[in-house]
Amino acid sequence: MKVINGGVSSAKGFKAAGIHCGVKADSGDKKDLALIVSECMCSAAATFTTNKVKAAPVYLSMNNIKDGQARAIVCNSGNANACAPNGEEHAAAMCRKTADVLGVELNDVLVASTGVIGHEINIDAIISGIPEAAAKLSEEGGEDASYAMMTTDLVNKQVCVEIELDGKKVTVGGAAKGSGMIHPNMGTMLCFITTDADVDNDILSEILKESVRVTFNRISVDGDTSTNDTCIIMANGLAGNPKIASKGADYEIFKEAVGFVCKTLAVKIAKDGEGATKLITCKVKGASSEAKAETISMSVIKSPLVKTAMFGEDANWGRVLCAMGYSGEEFDPLKVTVGFSSKAGSIDVCTGGKGLEFDEDKASEILAEEEITIDITMQEGDWEVTAWGCDLTYDYVKINGDYRT
Amino acid sequence: MKVINGGVSSAKGFKAAGIHCGVKADSGDKKDLALIVSECMCSAAATFTTNKVKAAPVYLSMNNIKDGQARAIVCNSGNANACAPNGEEHAAAMCRKTADVLGVELNDVLVASTGVIGHEINIDAIISGIPEAAAKLSEEGGEDASYAMMTTDLVNKQVCVEIELDGKKVTVGGAAKGSGMIHPNMGTMLCFITTDADVDNDILSEILKESVRVTFNRISVDGDTSTNDTCIIMANGLAGNPKIASKGADYEIFKEAVGFVCKTLAVKIAKDGEGATKLITCKVKGASSEAKAETISMSVIKSPLVKTAMFGEDANWGRVLCAMGYSGEEFDPLKVTVGFSSKAGSIDVCTGGKGLEFDEDKASEILAEEEITIDITMQEGDWEVTAWGCDLTYDYVKINGDYRT
Repeated sequence: MKVINGGVSSAKGFKAAGIHCGVKADSGDKKDLALIVSECMCSAAATFTTNKVKAAPVYLSMNNIKDGQARAIVCNSGNANACAPNGEEHAAAMCRKTADVLGVELNDVLVASTGVIGHEINIDAIISGIPEAAAKLSEEGGEDASYAMMTTDLVNKQVCVEIELDGKKVTVGGAAKGSGMIHPNMGTMLCFITTDADVDNDILSEILKESVRVTFNRISVDGDTSTNDTCIIMANGLAGNPKIASKGADYEIFKEAVGFVCKTLAVKIAKDGEGATKLITCKVKGASSEAKAETISMSVIKSPLVKTAMFGEDANWGRVLCAMGYSGEEFDPLKVTVGFSSKAGSIDVCTGGKGLEFDEDKASEILAEEEITIDITMQEGDWEVTAWGCDLTYDYVKINGDYRT
Repeated sequence: MKVINGGVSSAKGFKAAGIHCGVKADSGDKKDLALIVSECMCSAAATFTTNKVKAAPVYLSMNNIKDGQARAIVCNSGNANACAPNGEEHAAAMCRKTADVLGVELNDVLVASTGVIGHEINIDAIISGIPEAAAKLSEEGGEDASYAMMTTDLVNKQVCVEIELDGKKVTVGGAAKGSGMIHPNMGTMLCFITTDADVDNDILSEILKESVRVTFNRISVDGDTSTNDTCIIMANGLAGNPKIASKGADYEIFKEAVGFVCKTLAVKIAKDGEGATKLITCKVKGASSEAKAETISMSVIKSPLVKTAMFGEDANWGRVLCAMGYSGEEFDPLKVTVGFSSKAGSIDVCTGGKGLEFDEDKASEILAEEEITIDITMQEGDWEVTAWGCDLTYDYVKINGDYRT
């Protein structure tokens, strides 16, 4: 597997564009409309938010992807079209206009929105913007599309890899947005992945679900889950590889590529968490089950007290042990070892459920880095799970408090 | 039921004291050791933290209260004696010294600690402080005791009520500490309730559990659950009321009094939440079950985005609906109405899952108050649950971040 520059328009037969159409009215010419199109029909799969309150475009896309096929994705930022007046009509209008302009079937268009909740979307801006975006579709448009997905994200998020399947070059590229499970008024984690691999739809769907489970579902910025979360993969088969229709060597290579794309984008989202100054990785090793390791790692990564301690560069293992303790999982604290590591080194701070004498200066050096790992060993079994999050800072409060003074 | 001034030493036969013994070494003469004693044996009940990681004094008290009897509580602040070297030995020493000085049985003494996790407690200071505290025991000592329980609490927390049972005056007084489910390094919610009521132990235990369930278990400051949480009630029977041994009029009056004491102290803890500027109450009405109403109200009160919105005095109902949505409970968003209220008035901001046109100035007036209620109506049934929390502020990050610059 080779990491290359690129994103959603890098795989054969995909084009993308990102423009400013006017949904983000007050932010100059910031891009707010993205279009991702395949020149031929794709095998497609998606995962959507588990929130009981779903945005109109989520319901539309859930319905349109039922047949496992798609040609295009239209996505706006600046308004989530969630709990908003005429949401269903406007989502349908975005779909219809895109289908008309591209000359594709209605139910081959997927719609995604991200931004403010509860306000009517500026549908006129989007309707007039879609032809403009279509005119700009190109194989270099992936980057513009990744910018057009952003809300309060500080950086755009793309990744692309090349693999070889039976002698054929296959490309898997993706773009994501999100700097919190949900934003101030701004919803959503969005991820779009495109590939020219030829993949059976059931296999594609299974690979996406599994990849999302161990990547996007293991990051947390504030524990809130958006009304709009959407992750879509489109595979148009133009790479000409022998169709992946069952498990085997090609399946594993392709699955690794999709997993890498998802993990890379997930970590980028955690690192770009609202107000975050640090990427926090929590590795739980030696658990008796994957579920337990996952629950405990997520409990630690979500703990406001652990997050603020990391912001404060404070080797506060008591909070880590405490967050493990209220995770709901059974375990023996006397078997637990907690350590911190970063590129500055690593240090154990607690073992057997009790604190260790440790070098505070060394701990401070380690925690001063921008990427910190909390290492937890449970001595129970062989399961290991990694979860990603970020620190909790003044800026998180500022961004979300929108303090009116 | 009459609310009177007083606390844990107000009921007949109870004395208390609070002194500085030296556990809080760096904080001048701040009180850090509390003693609460009954002149005769009490029927006693307690609830303890559900955290899998429990402090040594919690294990000791869980064991000593098994027989449903107690005479005294010894409590220190400044060190939680959790995950700490020689924790079990030191908790046992606190128990033994208190029993010796008071001339009571070892297993009639309950021990509680709150403060830093993972550091060895200054047992010498406590051992020499216990006789000094015993010498200061008085019927006016409840207030000192409530101060000696405090860690980063800004205010001490006491309440006392008088009821009449079959012509006999009965007093129920309590003291609590806690300004987060868990503190920076500082663990714990502690609550001690004393009464001169004569109550069967099973009834007392049932009443405490039920009262805690609908009060202390429905507050959240940061969602973290401490290693030391302890709530104890002691009833010495000196009021001379006919023993409450079954449900009936006296049972109801007494239960209401205990419930009021718990609720008042719980709300004081939420209002004194770390860095909090506002007390947030979430009322969920019209739910199809109590469990659902509780889960949803707690999900809303815990949401960092709802909490920061309240800090920002932002009528952000989208975040309320979103927090309901990821609570895990099934409900129909189209039946939900969300409103905000305070002593400045009330306003509905969302109904049928969609935003309402509302007067922003009026909303700002309402949210500018220090005590705000989020009103949620579900149109599903008759269940109603109230939960309490606070806003998430810069000071929460400051207190917990302990930022080293």
